[in-house]
Amino acid sequence: MPRLAHRTELAVPFHAVELFKEANTLIAQGKDIISLGIGEPDFTAPPTVVEALQRAAAAGQAQYTPPSGTDELKAALCDYYRDHFNASVQPEQILVTAGASGALNLAALALVNPGDEVLMPDPSYPANQNFILAAGGIPRLIPSTAENRFQLTAADIEQHWTEKTRGVLIASPSNPTGATIDPKDLAELIQAVKARDGFIIMDEIYLGLYYEDKPQSALCLDPSLIVINSFSKYFHMTGWRLGWLIVPTEIRPAIEKIAASLAICAPALAQHAALACFEPEAMAIYEQRRLAFKARRDFLLPAFAAMGIQVPVTPDGAFYIYADISQHSQDSDDFSHRLLHEAHVAAVPGLDFGPAYAKKMLRFSYSTSLERLEEAVERMRRFLA
Amino acid sequence: MPRLAHRTELAVPFHAVELFKEANTLIAQGKDIISLGIGEPDFTAPPTVVEALQRAAAAGQAQYTPPSGTDELKAALCDYYRDHFNASVQPEQILVTAGASGALNLAALALVNPGDEVLMPDPSYPANQNFILAAGGIPRLIPSTAENRFQLTAADIEQHWTEKTRGVLIASPSNPTGATIDPKDLAELIQAVKARDGFIIMDEIYLGLYYEDKPQSALCLDPSLIVINSFSKYFHMTGWRLGWLIVPTEIRPAIEKIAASLAICAPALAQHAALACFEPEAMAIYEQRRLAFKARRDFLLPAFAAMGIQVPVTPDGAFYIYADISQHSQDSDDFSHRLLHEAHVAAVPGLDFGPAYAKKMLRFSYSTSLERLEEAVERMRRFLA
Ligand SMILES: Cc1ncc(COP(=O)(O)O)c(C=O)c1O
Ligand SMILES: Cc1ncc(COP(=O)(O)O)c(C=O)c1O
Repeated sequence: MPRLAHRTELAVPFHAVELFKEANTLIAQGKDIISLGIGEPDFTAPPTVVEALQRAAAAGQAQYTPPSGTDELKAALCDYYRDHFNASVQPEQILVTAGASGALNLAALALVNPGDEVLMPDPSYPANQNFILAAGGIPRLIPSTAENRFQLTAADIEQHWTEKTRGVLIASPSNPTGATIDPKDLAELIQAVKARDGFIIMDEIYLGLYYEDKPQSALCLDPSLIVINSFSKYFHMTGWRLGWLIVPTEIRPAIEKIAASLAICAPALAQHAALACFEPEAMAIYEQRRLAFKARRDFLLPAFAAMGIQVPVTPDGAFYIYADISQHSQDSDDFSHRLLHEAHVAAVPGLDFGPAYAKKMLRFSYSTSLERLEEAVERMRRFLA
Repeated sequence: MPRLAHRTELAVPFHAVELFKEANTLIAQGKDIISLGIGEPDFTAPPTVVEALQRAAAAGQAQYTPPSGTDELKAALCDYYRDHFNASVQPEQILVTAGASGALNLAALALVNPGDEVLMPDPSYPANQNFILAAGGIPRLIPSTAENRFQLTAADIEQHWTEKTRGVLIASPSNPTGATIDPKDLAELIQAVKARDGFIIMDEIYLGLYYEDKPQSALCLDPSLIVINSFSKYFHMTGWRLGWLIVPTEIRPAIEKIAASLAICAPALAQHAALACFEPEAMAIYEQRRLAFKARRDFLLPAFAAMGIQVPVTPDGAFYIYADISQHSQDSDDFSHRLLHEAHVAAVPGLDFGPAYAKKMLRFSYSTSLERLEEAVERMRRFLA
C-alpha cells in the first residue's frame, strides 16, 4: 500500500459529512428531511444558458481553451465588473478556473511558500485551510467577533502578524456568516496587510447575492487584490465547475504557467455557455432569484428570533444564517443531531468553520423554497417547545 | 504587487508556446499552417454523447456531485475495465477528476511530501514535473533509451533511487513517444520500486489508442498501482475536463478528503453525459477513429523514413511520433522554427519533454486528417530537399 503524504492527515475534513450520511439514511427510510445544510443554490442555470451550452456542444466547441480562458469570456467578465460593480478589470488580469475552488487553489500555489502563514477569520469556509495546506502553508484561524461582523480587522493584523505571515484570505460576503466586511474596515485591513508587504486574497463568490445596498467589488478599493469569484452561486452553476481569479497583470503570466500545467484549462463548453449568463434575459432571472433568497432570509430572521435563536450579525449576502443556539444547547454538534433525528431538519454545526464558535453556532442555509423553510421553522418550533 | 511563491519560478514552462505564437501570427497573415504540434484529437465527442449532455443540461443535472464522482459513472468505469482491459476495479477505488490533470495533481498531493524525489523518464509529458513541484516534491528526469522504449527500467531504479526517492511517474503509451512499456519490463520495474517501498503512478491516458496488440491496464499486473486516465484522448473530450484516478481502496478516503476540499467535484454535466461514451454506438465510433489514427501513423512512419527522419521506437499508441531529425540538423529548436517558417508545418521541439533529447528530437502529432498529413509530408520533403 503506498504511504500517504502528511498533508492527507493535516487536511481538515468536513465534519458535517457524518450528519449528512445520517440524513441520507433517514431519507432512505422514507423520512422527509428538510436540508438547510448544503451550500448550493436550489436554482439551476436559466434556459438561455442551458441552450447556449447545448449549442456549443452541438458545434463541438469542446477543445482545450487557452489556459486563462477564452477571450470572449474574459471580455464578458470585464464588462460585468464595469457594469455591475463599478470596477475596472482588464482581460489580462483574469484566469478562468474550475470554480472558485480552482481559483483558490491556484492563488495559494502562486503566493504561498512552504511554512508561510496565512491569516483567516474563524469562522471561515472550511476548504480555505486546505488550500493553504496544499501549498505547504500554515493556515492561522483568528477568532473574530460579532462586533467586527466575523471578519478580520486591522487590529487582528497588528496582533497576529508574525515573521512567517505572508497574507490573508477573507471572504465578503462570508460563508458561514453571510456577512460582508464593512468597506471602511476593509480599507484599514488592506492598509495594515500592505504595510507588512502581505497579500490579500478576497473571495467574492457571494458578491452578487446581496440583500441590502448593492456592494462594490473590493477591487474598487484596491486593484492589486487577488480576487476570487465563480459561476456557482449567483449564476447557479455549481456542478459546471467554472470560476475565475483576478490578479495584477504583472503576475498573471507566472500564474498562467502553473494553471496551464496543472489544469490545462477550465471546462470549455461551460466557458462558451457562460457568455449567455450576461445577457439581459438571464440577468433578469438571477435578479428575481436574488430577491427570492432575500425573501427567505427575511422570513427566517424574525422566525429564528422568535424561537430564541440569536443571529449575532444580520447576514446581508450569500444564503446562510450563522445562528447562536446557546440558549437551547451548550453543544451545537449534539443539537444538530437531535434537530435532525427529532425535527428532521439538517443544519451544519459550527465546528466545520473553525474552533472559536464550534459549540455555540449552527449554519442554516436557505437554499430551499420558502414553503419548505416555513415547514422547517414549524418543526423547529415544535422541537424547541 | 504581491510576491510570488518560489514554485512559480521552478515550474517548467511549455517552450513550444513561443512557436505556437509564431504559428498563430503566420495564420493571421493568411498563411496555411499545418499543425502537428498540438496534443489534442481532431475528433470531438460522438453525437450520442453530445445528446446525453444536452439532455442532462435540460434536466438540470448540474448540482455538485459527490467528490469522488457519481455512482453511475464509477460503475460504468468498472465495467469498462472489466470488458476492455481485463482488470477488476471496484467503485471504491475510483475518484473522478477534472481530466487526467486533476488526477495527476491529486495523486501528487496525496503521495508526495516536500523534498521527496519522484523519478520519471526523460522524455516525459512536461506537466509531470510541475505536478510533483506543486506538491513540494523534486522531479528527477532519468534519461531513457530507445532500447528501453524510452521508458524507465528496473535498472534505472537501482541506479537512481536515493534516500529521498519516494516513487515513479510513468506513462504507457507515453507522450511524446507514443510507445508503451513492455509488460515484462513493467513487471520488473514495479518489483524494483515496491522492493524500495515506493509508489508507482501509471498514466494510462492513451491506453485506448493502441495500434498493435490490445494492451492490458497495468492494474492487471498489480492492483495496488495508482492509475490515471481521462476522457480527453480516446473519448475525444479534451475541453470537457473529465478524467479519473484509481487507487487502492484503503487510501481512497484520505485522497477523497483532499479532492472534496480542493475541487469539490468534477464537472457534473460531463459526468452524466460520459455514461453515453460506453454505449455500443459511441464505442463503435471510437474504434473507427482509433483505426483512423492508426492509418495516419502507418502513412507517416514510412514517409518519415524516406525523408531521413528516424523514429527510434515505433509508436504503438497515442498520436505522437517522436522523431530524430539529427540527420538534418543539430538543433531541433532551430529546425522547428525553420520548418514552421519555410514549410509551414508546426511540430514541438524535444526540449519540452526533457533535456536528454532536447536537440535531436521533435514530436509530431498526427491529430490532423490524412489529407493534411499528406500535404505536410509533401512540404517537409520539399523543405528537406
Ligand atoms: C466561500 C466559498 N468559496 C469558494 C467556494 C467554492 O465554490 P466553487 O468551487 O463551486 O466555485 C465555496 C463553496 O461553497 C464557498 O462557500
Ligand atoms: C501523458 C498525458 N497525461 C495527462 C494529460 C492531461 O490530459 P487531460 O487533463 O486533458 O486529461 C496529457 C495531455 O496532453 C498527457 O499527454
